[in-house]
Amino acid sequence: MDQERFEKQLRFILEVDREKNILRQTHLSGGGRQENDAEHAWHMAVMAYLLREYANEPIDLAKTMMMILIHDVVEIDAGDTYAYDEAGAATQREREEAAAERLFGLLPEDQGRELRELFEEFEAYETAEARFAHTMDNFQPLMLNDSNGGGDWRAHGVRRSQVEKRNEKTGTGSEKIWDYMQKIIEKNVQKGNLLEEKED
Amino acid sequence: MDQERFEKQLRFILEVDREKNILRQTHLSGGGRQENDAEHAWHMAVMAYLLREYANEPIDLAKTMMMILIHDVVEIDAGDTYAYDEAGAATQREREEAAAERLFGLLPEDQGRELRELFEEFEAYETAEARFAHTMDNFQPLMLNDSNGGGDWRAHGVRRSQVEKRNEKTGTGSEKIWDYMQKIIEKNVQKGNLLEEKED
Repeated sequence: MDQERFEKQLRFILEVDREKNILRQTHLSGGGRQENDAEHAWHMAVMAYLLREYANEPIDLAKTMMMILIHDVVEIDAGDTYAYDEAGAATQREREEAAAERLFGLLPEDQGRELRELFEEFEAYETAEARFAHTMDNFQPLMLNDSNGGGDWRAHGVRRSQVEKRNEKTGTGSEKIWDYMQKIIEKNVQKGNLLEEKED
Repeated sequence: MDQERFEKQLRFILEVDREKNILRQTHLSGGGRQENDAEHAWHMAVMAYLLREYANEPIDLAKTMMMILIHDVVEIDAGDTYAYDEAGAATQREREEAAAERLFGLLPEDQGRELRELFEEFEAYETAEARFAHTMDNFQPLMLNDSNGGGDWRAHGVRRSQVEKRNEKTGTGSEKIWDYMQKIIEKNVQKGNLLEEKED
């Protein structure tokens, strides 16, 4: 065993423990506490395994699962940027790039490069795996939020158009899941959980 | 899309959200709060991906990751049984079998059977994937606990012999990782975090 290599791996593994402290705006089902990034990633990976039959294109499962498991690791340094926080979104990319540099840099060079590439592939949204991972990333909080009567949308006064913009590419990962999500969105508009508005 | 099939999948996916509320005896690094089962599984899956080069035998990565991600799902009904709780251990198997029957039974028949088999394979400890998954299951809390000065062992007055019994098959998944873990155990005995005792 290459002791230096192993210690670099462990350094990264212990560092990412901190992802369990990064809170999201989504609440657990049953009106529970805020979800954290590690739980969110766990849930998405289970979903990817069980729902992969609905992906538009065949996906490499192990690759998709690892992409999902590490896609929010950068938030350890950069924090969570809420999907509908426009001010935060303006600096998000820069903050997350610096975080990726530091965090993946803890690993042995080959694995650091591999995980950095997986992270960049997710962000670039151009492969079948990245598209399906994003479908899970958008479906998971929508499902939880819907189970809680749309409370997260109501708390932030979210508009239907914002949800639709957020999801403009969700169907490129899975048309079938996006069809279902649109029904959930429509139901929440009808109930007043999402604000309907006229275009200016 | 088979709507009934999809709804069964979603029923399971929403139900396992509750795993985020099952607390373990392990605390997060930095002396944080208790870890929950979903975070533990997320961390183990990341570890399995990064440390698979140390497995004694080649493993199917996607299979190992999913086995890890769902290995504690039964604790939603059965609760977490602390590694050194002997009274709890006596009824653990029966409680977890009933939970497996109910939870995996929420899924479409083929996927319910597949996940039940993955869970049983983990428990049976007889394949390369199950052995390596168990190595991760034992290494992950040891690493966190060591990072916290052995606080979880001290809180429960855990004896060295208990840790060694718990880990009697850990080396069958990875001799290299088990060698490292033994050094951690020895260090914690020296520091008094684990109780050394004479055999009767």
